[in-house]
Amino acid sequence: MTISKGPQAFPRSEYLRRVGLVKAEMARRGVDALVVNNSRNITYLTGCTARSGITPQGLVVSSAKEEPTFILRGLDAPAAIHQSFLERGNVIGYPEKLIANPDMDGFDAVIDFLHELGLASCGLGLELGDLSAQTAEKFKARMPKAKLVDCTKAVAWIRTIKSDLEIAVMREAAAIADAGIMRAAEVIRPGVREADAMAEIMATLARGANGKPGTDLANVFFCSSPRTGTCHIRWSEDIIREGSQINIELGGVRHGYVAAIMRTFSVGAPSERLRRVHEAELAGLEAALSTVRPGATCSDVANAFYRTIEKYGVKKSTRCGYAIGVDWTEPTASLQTGEMTELKPNMTFHLMLGNWIDEDFGYALSETFRVTDSGVEVLTRAPRKLFELS
Amino acid sequence: MTISKGPQAFPRSEYLRRVGLVKAEMARRGVDALVVNNSRNITYLTGCTARSGITPQGLVVSSAKEEPTFILRGLDAPAAIHQSFLERGNVIGYPEKLIANPDMDGFDAVIDFLHELGLASCGLGLELGDLSAQTAEKFKARMPKAKLVDCTKAVAWIRTIKSDLEIAVMREAAAIADAGIMRAAEVIRPGVREADAMAEIMATLARGANGKPGTDLANVFFCSSPRTGTCHIRWSEDIIREGSQINIELGGVRHGYVAAIMRTFSVGAPSERLRRVHEAELAGLEAALSTVRPGATCSDVANAFYRTIEKYGVKKSTRCGYAIGVDWTEPTASLQTGEMTELKPNMTFHLMLGNWIDEDFGYALSETFRVTDSGVEVLTRAPRKLFELS
Repeated sequence: MTISKGPQAFPRSEYLRRVGLVKAEMARRGVDALVVNNSRNITYLTGCTARSGITPQGLVVSSAKEEPTFILRGLDAPAAIHQSFLERGNVIGYPEKLIANPDMDGFDAVIDFLHELGLASCGLGLELGDLSAQTAEKFKARMPKAKLVDCTKAVAWIRTIKSDLEIAVMREAAAIADAGIMRAAEVIRPGVREADAMAEIMATLARGANGKPGTDLANVFFCSSPRTGTCHIRWSEDIIREGSQINIELGGVRHGYVAAIMRTFSVGAPSERLRRVHEAELAGLEAALSTVRPGATCSDVANAFYRTIEKYGVKKSTRCGYAIGVDWTEPTASLQTGEMTELKPNMTFHLMLGNWIDEDFGYALSETFRVTDSGVEVLTRAPRKLFELS
Repeated sequence: MTISKGPQAFPRSEYLRRVGLVKAEMARRGVDALVVNNSRNITYLTGCTARSGITPQGLVVSSAKEEPTFILRGLDAPAAIHQSFLERGNVIGYPEKLIANPDMDGFDAVIDFLHELGLASCGLGLELGDLSAQTAEKFKARMPKAKLVDCTKAVAWIRTIKSDLEIAVMREAAAIADAGIMRAAEVIRPGVREADAMAEIMATLARGANGKPGTDLANVFFCSSPRTGTCHIRWSEDIIREGSQINIELGGVRHGYVAAIMRTFSVGAPSERLRRVHEAELAGLEAALSTVRPGATCSDVANAFYRTIEKYGVKKSTRCGYAIGVDWTEPTASLQTGEMTELKPNMTFHLMLGNWIDEDFGYALSETFRVTDSGVEVLTRAPRKLFELS
């Protein structure tokens, strides 16, 4: 009658470490309870990677309780019990009457729980950047005595520095991403439909690498001529042609953690322009990586890239990447000029050097890296080349 | 230097029809301009299916202009020009300085545009259910003279009734979903890793059916023993075993439109309990479908299902489905008791009869259907059976 606990990606002590960091931040902000509703933060703090779709859920971290309490749609509770480190009493399913109900939703169940716990007049943290305006109004209206504190990104900033256990999982994800790129090099050829090439690439991302299957599919993008100036098109209905260029971005996933990679493919000999851009970007990538060490800033890394490619006559108008971890982008440290966040050991970044130079011409290159005690470890390892296929 | 227009899934007249319906609704609500930021609504109104990830974007529908104006991150503008029906002058990329900037973001560009258009003191519709609380505050602060009107779900309600052109695309998506189920029946067998089975299933969803490739991957869920009481786990690291039950939910995608389907698979002979639930659910499915016609209510459909399975001694505590279209669930009509929305021709639903009976036991069955002038057309057509595999 009851579901068993599944294998956990991390030991209980690792989750309690993370929850402890959140509680310390709550204390700094004068908050007794924090309602986490960002799904990536919930994965980070519980291990639960099941997706409840569009229904509201809230993980309540209370300074008075060791474990958080996860309040979610009743039918999603068994998955949370199975996947998370939480004791089953700390997973509370709310009733179906709150679904597609114009008057109430799952956040009412979260608010009821806060009232029951005697937290109605405490300092209450909310992730206002992840809550809809309607839901924020509901918290104000139903908890008039609480002191509401905006804690958007508070958990995300804690996520920026990974534990060694998280790094090990990201290495597994990176090996899967590499496998996806190598499979792309095998299946991209003239006459193949883009969808059929992507079918093979995505299948590889699911099968995984080194005996570790992918645990989910992350975003995949296949932007081919005449779409190489775009970056977020899944794929088109075209057939790959002789002379086509293809920019691929994909990620490997292990237990919610993503490692991302981008590479450029040329079917037949690349144009002189593409060759020149590749040469510049490759030099820029190496320059950026060589600046990575504790104490350097995000800005330093980005500037090393920009300065290098400019020597080659190439410019890039977009940022050079971002923190990465649970489910791809972390909304915190950003590799761009003027971003003075200092690098620290075990921060992880997607050094995203995709460069959409003209509306109809772009180029893709990236790596996922970790800051080490003295420099950098590049987690993705596919050859750093412009793939020429025939 | 400029990107070409790609092939469009629908003719310009179809998009203008949709925009016209939105403008009529705006007039009813006393709104001169509407900022659409729900990504599904943007796909519906433009044809753009590229995903900008987490960066803000807004589609401004103004009663004074024929076409909407799409304001999005500069690097995503070429994809919008390529994929959408919009004239290129109506796609405006905002600068990179608004990315990862703690003081400003893309919504500032949207607000600047509204000021430039002289809409600063008009009736302005916002999708407050899709905007963060922080962003809603920004609109209030920067547009103090505007009369802000909450238009959450206004476009979603318009989406509920499809055109014949949309139905044709959903039929293509349904054929892809069917192919996914049939592939599952081929690849699920003892000794196979779940990830390897899913690799094949997802590859099939990308390859498509009837010469029409999938244009994206929708959600896929593979919930196997001992997880059949869960519904939203992607897949696990387990190996499929003799005696395992597997509940699959997946969707086919064409041009952003999804048709969904669920089926249950038994490796070896199913248990007596599973057989009985299947018999009840199959009868319930047929009873529900037989009530579908214009003028019947969502409640009628759900009640026909509930009453039928209860005769078999089976209960289901969750709703029986929901409107479906662009990127799966539409947040409008819901197949549940007491939901008095009347069915109309060309409404489309996912009749979702997944039934998570115990924490450790559930069952999956669903179809995507269309309301016709006199009854029902079931779009998904995979055999309505409990798949017994060996």
